[in-house]
Amino acid sequence: DRLAPLLADLGDIPVVTDPTIVRRRSRDFFWYSPVLNDQLSDKSADVIVAPRDEADIVRIAAACVSRRVPLTVRAGGTGNYGQAVPLAGGVLLDVTALDTIEWIRPGQIRVGAGAKMNAIDAATRPSGYELRMHPSTKRTATIGGFVAGGSGGIGSITYGGLREPGNILAARIVTMEAEPRIIELRDDAAQKINRAYGTTGIITALEMPLAPAQPWIDVVVAFDDFLAAVEFGRAAALSDGIVKKLLAPITWPLPSYFGALKSCCPEGKSILIAMIAERSLEDFRDLLGDRGTITLETPTDERPGRVPLYEYTWNHTTLQVLKSDRTVTYLQCLYPHDRLLQKVEEMRTMFPDEVLQHLEFIRFNGQLTCSGLPVVRYSDAERLNEIIRLHEAHEVHIANPHVYTVEDGSRYKRVDVDQLGFKHEVDPHGLLNPGKMRSFVAER
Amino acid sequence: DRLAPLLADLGDIPVVTDPTIVRRRSRDFFWYSPVLNDQLSDKSADVIVAPRDEADIVRIAAACVSRRVPLTVRAGGTGNYGQAVPLAGGVLLDVTALDTIEWIRPGQIRVGAGAKMNAIDAATRPSGYELRMHPSTKRTATIGGFVAGGSGGIGSITYGGLREPGNILAARIVTMEAEPRIIELRDDAAQKINRAYGTTGIITALEMPLAPAQPWIDVVVAFDDFLAAVEFGRAAALSDGIVKKLLAPITWPLPSYFGALKSCCPEGKSILIAMIAERSLEDFRDLLGDRGTITLETPTDERPGRVPLYEYTWNHTTLQVLKSDRTVTYLQCLYPHDRLLQKVEEMRTMFPDEVLQHLEFIRFNGQLTCSGLPVVRYSDAERLNEIIRLHEAHEVHIANPHVYTVEDGSRYKRVDVDQLGFKHEVDPHGLLNPGKMRSFVAER
Ligand SMILES: Cc1cc2nc3c(=O)[nH]c(=O)nc-3n(C[C@H](O)[C@H](O)[C@H](O)COP(=O)(O)OP(=O)(O)OC[C@H]3O[C@@H](n4cnc5c(N)ncnc54)[C@H](O)[C@@H]3O)c2cc1C
Ligand SMILES: Cc1cc2nc3c(=O)[nH]c(=O)nc-3n(C[C@H](O)[C@H](O)[C@H](O)COP(=O)(O)OP(=O)(O)OC[C@H]3O[C@@H](n4cnc5c(N)ncnc54)[C@H](O)[C@@H]3O)c2cc1C
Repeated sequence: DRLAPLLADLGDIPVVTDPTIVRRRSRDFFWYSPVLNDQLSDKSADVIVAPRDEADIVRIAAACVSRRVPLTVRAGGTGNYGQAVPLAGGVLLDVTALDTIEWIRPGQIRVGAGAKMNAIDAATRPSGYELRMHPSTKRTATIGGFVAGGSGGIGSITYGGLREPGNILAARIVTMEAEPRIIELRDDAAQKINRAYGTTGIITALEMPLAPAQPWIDVVVAFDDFLAAVEFGRAAALSDGIVKKLLAPITWPLPSYFGALKSCCPEGKSILIAMIAERSLEDFRDLLGDRGTITLETPTDERPGRVPLYEYTWNHTTLQVLKSDRTVTYLQCLYPHDRLLQKVEEMRTMFPDEVLQHLEFIRFNGQLTCSGLPVVRYSDAERLNEIIRLHEAHEVHIANPHVYTVEDGSRYKRVDVDQLGFKHEVDPHGLLNPGKMRSFVAER
Repeated sequence: DRLAPLLADLGDIPVVTDPTIVRRRSRDFFWYSPVLNDQLSDKSADVIVAPRDEADIVRIAAACVSRRVPLTVRAGGTGNYGQAVPLAGGVLLDVTALDTIEWIRPGQIRVGAGAKMNAIDAATRPSGYELRMHPSTKRTATIGGFVAGGSGGIGSITYGGLREPGNILAARIVTMEAEPRIIELRDDAAQKINRAYGTTGIITALEMPLAPAQPWIDVVVAFDDFLAAVEFGRAAALSDGIVKKLLAPITWPLPSYFGALKSCCPEGKSILIAMIAERSLEDFRDLLGDRGTITLETPTDERPGRVPLYEYTWNHTTLQVLKSDRTVTYLQCLYPHDRLLQKVEEMRTMFPDEVLQHLEFIRFNGQLTCSGLPVVRYSDAERLNEIIRLHEAHEVHIANPHVYTVEDGSRYKRVDVDQLGFKHEVDPHGLLNPGKMRSFVAER
């Protein structure tokens, strides 16, 4: 058993060795992709190790390096592309105990990487702040998992994605060396761990900028035609005086899968899901006029037992469909900002029934555009690649969610900093989540 | 004396009849324009009336209608195009006593139209808010004057101008009828008094949306070349993660006129004036890299005796030059957002010494672009019109600051609502600031 000496090194740090539990927690939401489902289903760590604090992490990292055992960080486990699935076994590092809030200052928070985003917002709201953006998995995912694995989400219509300068203030990491170092990465340098799937250091704490907290209203608007929903969404997005956090046009028949929301989704209508600041609601309604019909208008409610509207958006839209139809999968597209409506229409014409449109308005490089997360009726891998090729040929860029490496999945949103060079500094033996940073070749 | 019966109607409402004072307060900053200076220098009201509250205003309006005496509202008197200059004499209504703050709620304020913007920000800041935008005259101008006469300013880089939906929540007005009505205009309807120069009602109170207050830092960056300042300004403006309130590129030699700021303006360098939220400063510096040199970095200080950096921007830039050189005037341009740098370069090439570039980054219809407020070496009215024509021919739109009517001055930023139709409802005899809404023909 190659693990015995390692476990001995770890002393009293809690571990889980029960193979059923270890196997189950070695998975994430890669099963969205039939392609990844085939490739990753049998992967598992050998043991879960659950550090209580940063000192534990330093000890674990040193032990793993000395025994040459791979280590993959797992937080909420809500990643989509097998990001937290260990390809080469070894240690699955459960960082969720590192959830301490170190401080909250006006507009900033410093917090343990394992803190849930929901808990962060609850803690900052009394002082009038909330996270600038969060994924639709906010109620289960951690801030460290978001920074290491995510891209953006609810709030990105105002602040852009995580890779925009200013959206991650600082990260503290433990390196994967014989004598692990603790490094504080600030501003630009913090991008070295952004969406690197935990291959460039174990994040222990993060400093994140905050936005003013708003009383948000969940709104559903129904439209006769999907393009009308997109067009109005764009008008609302471009109204800089209307404060919003979410604008997601979703084509019929996708809303027919929205169980609890069905009463707000009239038969045959495409919808726009929105989160609007309470005081901007009247202006939002004025702008809408008679272009569509508001079918829901209620304060965002994130309490247990409730379902905030954002859990029908971003990667949740596909999940709502997958709940009752396992024959679908999805894509991630970036539309060119200067020909948005034209390109959306082109894609609809090309794949009227096979690719069901779901868009998210975002700012990207300072421009308003849409990220597309269409639901795709799956036939086989070959056809899926053909659909991807046809999108690219029409200048709709694809970040392929059917691959598990950093490089292949992030074609349109790689950060500027040299993550590969940094990995050589902090993980020279390539033990952190091995196989995910494809271009890396370990020393010796 | 046609005023005697009117004055009798007014009872104990304070009036000023001293001709020197009345004459002086009948002026605004129209003298920026040599053209307007010729046209307006001899215009004056007959009397200043200073209502103490809304009830006084109702009484004054009724009296003016019954006696058919024109009424022009004056607040801070900082308008640029003779907006508050009475063309037909009559009453100059000094509304500065209506400065009560009715309430402050999270993200909103309701306040008397005569309140100074500086006082508003001072009152809201303890609860974490400030006005979304203000003109560079914030320390002397009123909120009513801004809404009735202004367009945007510091903050418009985030929220767009006043005409964007959501930037004026409500306005309360007194109509100019025999029996004056009090009307509450909400949301879209509030646009009926936006930049109408007080021709569509006397505003007594306003509800304005607020932005989260930030600890702002005044920054000056020096560049070898003006276009480098514009290019970097654009990059900073497009970085949605960097919180900012002002980005103004100003070409050399304009900074040579900036008296107290001279030590921050190296010989021969063009500058970018910026206001950056404290916590975004490091990211701003990282983005700048070695493209330019920061020569000033200090918290914005608006206390009496200090000069906040924004008093070198917007229409203040021209004023700084006019202080020592009365041979210049200015223009107001709107650049097309999709060819910004190209057009700026074209204008520079066309008028290398005659039109000295000063830009303000703003959002306009949701797009990032620049408003240009170049300093123009004046020869005569004909050449000025030729310069305007050449701008328009190159798709750089001009809002002519050398005309005094609503229609001629606001070509690119008219609001959607029907201000003319509304004027017929609230001022059927055309007594409010007569001559300013050119298209209006009075009933009778
Ligand atoms: C239904 C659904 C909706 C989603 N919506 C969105 C969305 O709107 N936007 C979006 O960006 N993503 C979205 N995702 C993806 C995912 O939920 C988010 O990125 C989430 O923030 C991941 O957080 P987590 O704590 O679950 O991370 P995990 O899944 O546990 O980890 C994600 C990655 O980060 C690494 N990691 C985690 N913690 C650390 C650490 N402390 N140090 C180093 N590496 C670490 C892991 O190794 C892994 O590679 C969605 C996924 C699902 C299933
Ligand atoms: C140096 C300088 C810099 C400037 N910078 C900017 C800038 O950055 N952005 C900008 O938009 N403008 C700018 N301006 C123009 C002007 O300062 C602003 O528009 C300012 O807000 C006007 O406010 P005020 O109280 O001085 O109004 P006034 O000049 O008194 O009045 C302006 C107009 O509004 C009308 N009015 C005033 N109050 C009322 C009321 N209660 N009811 C009905 N009508 C009313 C008046 O009749 C007049 O037509 C600048 C001017 C100068 C001289």
